[in-house]
Amino acid sequence: MSKYYLGIDIGGTDIKIGVIREDYSIAVKHVIPTLSDCSVDDMIAEMAAAGKVAVEMAGISEAEIEHVGVGIPGAVNLNTNRIVFLPNVGWRNVDFIPIFQKHWDIPVFLGNDADAAALAEVYAGAAKGYDNAIVLTLGTGVGGGIVFDKKLFTGGGLGTEPGHIIIVADGEPCNCGANGCLEAYASVTGLIREAIRALAEHPESLLHKLCEGNIDNLNGKMIFDAAKQNDVAANMVVSNYVKYLGVGIASLCNALRPQVIILGGGLCEAGEPLFGPLDKIVEAVYFFPGDGGMPPILKAELGNDAGMIGAALFGIGS
Amino acid sequence: MSKYYLGIDIGGTDIKIGVIREDYSIAVKHVIPTLSDCSVDDMIAEMAAAGKVAVEMAGISEAEIEHVGVGIPGAVNLNTNRIVFLPNVGWRNVDFIPIFQKHWDIPVFLGNDADAAALAEVYAGAAKGYDNAIVLTLGTGVGGGIVFDKKLFTGGGLGTEPGHIIIVADGEPCNCGANGCLEAYASVTGLIREAIRALAEHPESLLHKLCEGNIDNLNGKMIFDAAKQNDVAANMVVSNYVKYLGVGIASLCNALRPQVIILGGGLCEAGEPLFGPLDKIVEAVYFFPGDGGMPPILKAELGNDAGMIGAALFGIGS
Repeated sequence: MSKYYLGIDIGGTDIKIGVIREDYSIAVKHVIPTLSDCSVDDMIAEMAAAGKVAVEMAGISEAEIEHVGVGIPGAVNLNTNRIVFLPNVGWRNVDFIPIFQKHWDIPVFLGNDADAAALAEVYAGAAKGYDNAIVLTLGTGVGGGIVFDKKLFTGGGLGTEPGHIIIVADGEPCNCGANGCLEAYASVTGLIREAIRALAEHPESLLHKLCEGNIDNLNGKMIFDAAKQNDVAANMVVSNYVKYLGVGIASLCNALRPQVIILGGGLCEAGEPLFGPLDKIVEAVYFFPGDGGMPPILKAELGNDAGMIGAALFGIGS
Repeated sequence: MSKYYLGIDIGGTDIKIGVIREDYSIAVKHVIPTLSDCSVDDMIAEMAAAGKVAVEMAGISEAEIEHVGVGIPGAVNLNTNRIVFLPNVGWRNVDFIPIFQKHWDIPVFLGNDADAAALAEVYAGAAKGYDNAIVLTLGTGVGGGIVFDKKLFTGGGLGTEPGHIIIVADGEPCNCGANGCLEAYASVTGLIREAIRALAEHPESLLHKLCEGNIDNLNGKMIFDAAKQNDVAANMVVSNYVKYLGVGIASLCNALRPQVIILGGGLCEAGEPLFGPLDKIVEAVYFFPGDGGMPPILKAELGNDAGMIGAALFGIGS
């Protein structure tokens, strides 16, 4: 009998359910919609049922599943094992585990989705072979997870928020209510905000054309694409973006000394124009009194599956 | 037979050697000068000899000493167990432990002095009763140690530098070569730099009188004293100082979620004018999505003995 894990990644629009092998590869991936208009109990029952469907799809027995891990885009208190707040479906203080276990009597582990992604990259992705990593996902916000000795660093069970280190005192307002967080600069939202500002000053910019005259169409790829074509406005925006991201990474490295930094999110597809200058900026700011160089900054490998694979790892790396 | 530990705190001008009881109280404190003009081997031999003197002073036997801990104001690599760099005596890549053990065959643990101070405050000082703490010492620089689950967080053995998180991208130059580090703002050096700038603009400031017309005499106490007397320039300087310190603390809290923050160094004697506004600033910036409040910010209790007590703890809390 082989060993498997079930990883559940609760997203805003869908829930990914994966049967994960012992080598952290995906045996089956089953996706159901996120039902925001049903009760907490019903939605958890749906997940348990869908998990069992996934097990059937994998052609294995429920007994072969060691445990279920659940990653959420919200806050979990690992001391009380409760979901503190899950904004996209409005859950507060939900005692998820016993509700799930009414439908499936199996060990269940909860965690944050950025933490899941970090574990996944360390066990099965770009940080494989490293013990200590910080994984940042550059999206609407900046999600982040910290792994040391192949275990999640959970901030005493309350969760860490490396995306909310402050890199510019009195800086740009952040969604969290503070000013100057890394997220306010290194998220796609921050990148687009700066591009919109630059466009107002640069009527000649290629970006006007790329977004078809409507700034609501702007996305990160357009901005990096325009920079590649030496658009002055886009170049300035990208260069500032990389600078602030680099300062944030260096700051985290100085405080925590990871062996590797992993960056995820669609922006990372930009490749060299992002990673090349980033290395130089972090190297200039990284504090190391004579011992070792700066950690490499690598592109995440697991994409949208990271949260699902990593959720399965909550029972292993935490 | 009781259990004791020996803690050695190597400072720039003297070396403090403490026989520490099992309850982390000090049985004997013995101080010798730091000899910067003798060889590495001789200086380590002196320390071992002085350690044995301290043991004799305590009226106990060498066999009652469980281990020796050594804290240095420099970088230690805990993976190789070597001193990487000890600036004040110019040591580089020193294999301290076997040299010490030639003179005294006993387990020896090395570490950074800011880490030692952090452990001491958690086991025997202001953070007693907490498992997770960040301890910052506001001095010429900003030293810092991170303790989680009553163990040092060592950055994979390479050491952490919470004083070198970057809080102002492109900000004031820091001693480390980067710009905008917490140390550049929250150290006494940073405080005095700002006071000197303010004095140039404020010929009426009380600080001119307090430093007897010589800015080289300025110290942190004068600046806080003048602020207490409502000196406009000093008030502005203190209020900015507290703001940046607060941003740095909040940033560390967001990333790591400690249960308590401990501040050490002479400046903390300022009391309420420092801690009162600091609480408010950190509270405004602290990220906590619905779970728990901000950690308390407390004054360190062990003063100059923290490094010595904490060095003895390297064999316990690391």
